[in-house]
Amino acid sequence: MNNLIQSFLPSIETELQRVVAMLDTPRTRPFHEMLTYHMGWTGEGAGPEAQGKRIRPLLVLLTTSACGANWQLALPAAAAVELIHNFSLAHDDIQDQSDLRRGRPTVWKKWGAAHAINVGDALFILAHLALLELRERVPPETALKAGQIVNDACLALTSGQFMDMSYENRATLSIEEYWPMVAGKTAALLSACTHAGAALGGADEAACEAYRDFGHYLGLAFQVQDDYLGIWGDSALTGKSSESDLVTGKKSLPVLYGLAKKGPFARRQAHGPVRPEEVPALAEQLSKEGAKLFTQETADRMTDLALQSLRAADPQGEAGEALFELAGKLLNRQN
Amino acid sequence: MNNLIQSFLPSIETELQRVVAMLDTPRTRPFHEMLTYHMGWTGEGAGPEAQGKRIRPLLVLLTTSACGANWQLALPAAAAVELIHNFSLAHDDIQDQSDLRRGRPTVWKKWGAAHAINVGDALFILAHLALLELRERVPPETALKAGQIVNDACLALTSGQFMDMSYENRATLSIEEYWPMVAGKTAALLSACTHAGAALGGADEAACEAYRDFGHYLGLAFQVQDDYLGIWGDSALTGKSSESDLVTGKKSLPVLYGLAKKGPFARRQAHGPVRPEEVPALAEQLSKEGAKLFTQETADRMTDLALQSLRAADPQGEAGEALFELAGKLLNRQN
Repeated sequence: MNNLIQSFLPSIETELQRVVAMLDTPRTRPFHEMLTYHMGWTGEGAGPEAQGKRIRPLLVLLTTSACGANWQLALPAAAAVELIHNFSLAHDDIQDQSDLRRGRPTVWKKWGAAHAINVGDALFILAHLALLELRERVPPETALKAGQIVNDACLALTSGQFMDMSYENRATLSIEEYWPMVAGKTAALLSACTHAGAALGGADEAACEAYRDFGHYLGLAFQVQDDYLGIWGDSALTGKSSESDLVTGKKSLPVLYGLAKKGPFARRQAHGPVRPEEVPALAEQLSKEGAKLFTQETADRMTDLALQSLRAADPQGEAGEALFELAGKLLNRQN
Repeated sequence: MNNLIQSFLPSIETELQRVVAMLDTPRTRPFHEMLTYHMGWTGEGAGPEAQGKRIRPLLVLLTTSACGANWQLALPAAAAVELIHNFSLAHDDIQDQSDLRRGRPTVWKKWGAAHAINVGDALFILAHLALLELRERVPPETALKAGQIVNDACLALTSGQFMDMSYENRATLSIEEYWPMVAGKTAALLSACTHAGAALGGADEAACEAYRDFGHYLGLAFQVQDDYLGIWGDSALTGKSSESDLVTGKKSLPVLYGLAKKGPFARRQAHGPVRPEEVPALAEQLSKEGAKLFTQETADRMTDLALQSLRAADPQGEAGEALFELAGKLLNRQN
């Protein structure tokens, strides 16, 4: 991995732990432990695997640095976006009734939904307390601007979450309804990372917008690719067919494309839940109806838009190279 | 009711509706409706009864005004604290599995816990978006200070919530453990209201602290009085014995006092859930052991501290009188 990224990761972890430690008081120690477990630092299975890739804070720091500013001034914002990401995961796991997150029992599974709701709330509040610390490092107007960018993204996040949940019970859903949901659930926070990073780095309005668009299209490209892998990725097709989006019933882009075709795929979908053993043939059918090509082309188009935006932002130095590298890694996953 | 309070209430409602309307978009209209239902504006039973007393925003506006500033500049902060209060109620109702809130079905009862979690999250985010609007009315440093005060209170709120939930399963609990829980769950946000109101009103450091203390002790006094009424209030003793804190098992101040006595009351408690028909005799027993007097004296002491702090803050004009009046009304409830 890129040296710069490697060198940022420990700083991100230290900053996150410092912020979360605000809850490390004698009376709230078990509460603090729930948060450190969720963040992947403590409990069974703790470690890098349980922590995720910290993509969001990396995007903040790399963007600030690529604007020619000192990345360290953006550290509280980097911590904030990762805490917000984790707040949404903690609540998402309750909403989806997910038992596992990154291979470990979820917070609600371990401590119950009541505590897990509170854990998510606390992560969200800690994110805001971190954002407020920016005022010790940047002018107050800039700190407020970063707060605005992040909170706008959070509102989009809950709106996207609402759409996602309300789509579950919808028999028909068009591709036009897919984009606002994904823009909210996946792209908004990534876009806020690059946008806030640029604002903290002192970028001008045009560069801020280019970085914002980069994060936005990066998020869309990532989600479309995720949808592709959810049906035609190795693990979805072989071995773990039960995890295929065709079985879980996720309203992903290729599925919506297939439903709109009203062909054999759509007719099979209308008959109710898909069994794992049907997955290979149904994935093939969906591909035959054009969904695979459409999804791949859409992912490519979004990737092009992301890279085009990043080039327009004209990121500088080693951090600039690292941003291109990070985008490339995110958009060339095979699984 | 005080004329000033009467005149503030419609402005508070308008400001709240304006902020919540950020979610009134074509794709999130049903989501917006969940929020307007929770706020008491729409759906069955909508109206003043369903909206609550809006004590928190009133405290913000009255404090700003009592500091000699224009109360209207504090309107976004007033909306923010009420939205935060309602965020905590929405999540609290899920955590406590409460079916009713102000006489109406709770959000999770109507739309399920998954949506209710998201409703709470959205209310919280809208509160922050409202706070950010302060920068159009006050200097950026003041807007950030208000944000800090409110977020510090929110962290105390989740900490208090954690303590409250973890106390439920504790066989023994001392009175020393009662205060930090109540300070977080009840007093922190009320204290933030008067503190932020003073900061926005341009009060000096000493006055800010006096207002902060006023809100803090007002919250403690209110909670202790609530605990008193939960056992010896008219509705707890007569008719609705099933709502007595003795039946619900709430670890209120008089109950903790009784448990510490290790007398007949404590021995009865150790035997498991109390039936409604036992309530009158058990309340009498608790009173005989000194808990009623202790609770009343504690409430009086906290009330004195609240009024002492308010006098130290030296609130001015009609708003100052209204603050004393509001405190008096809050602390002289009979039910």
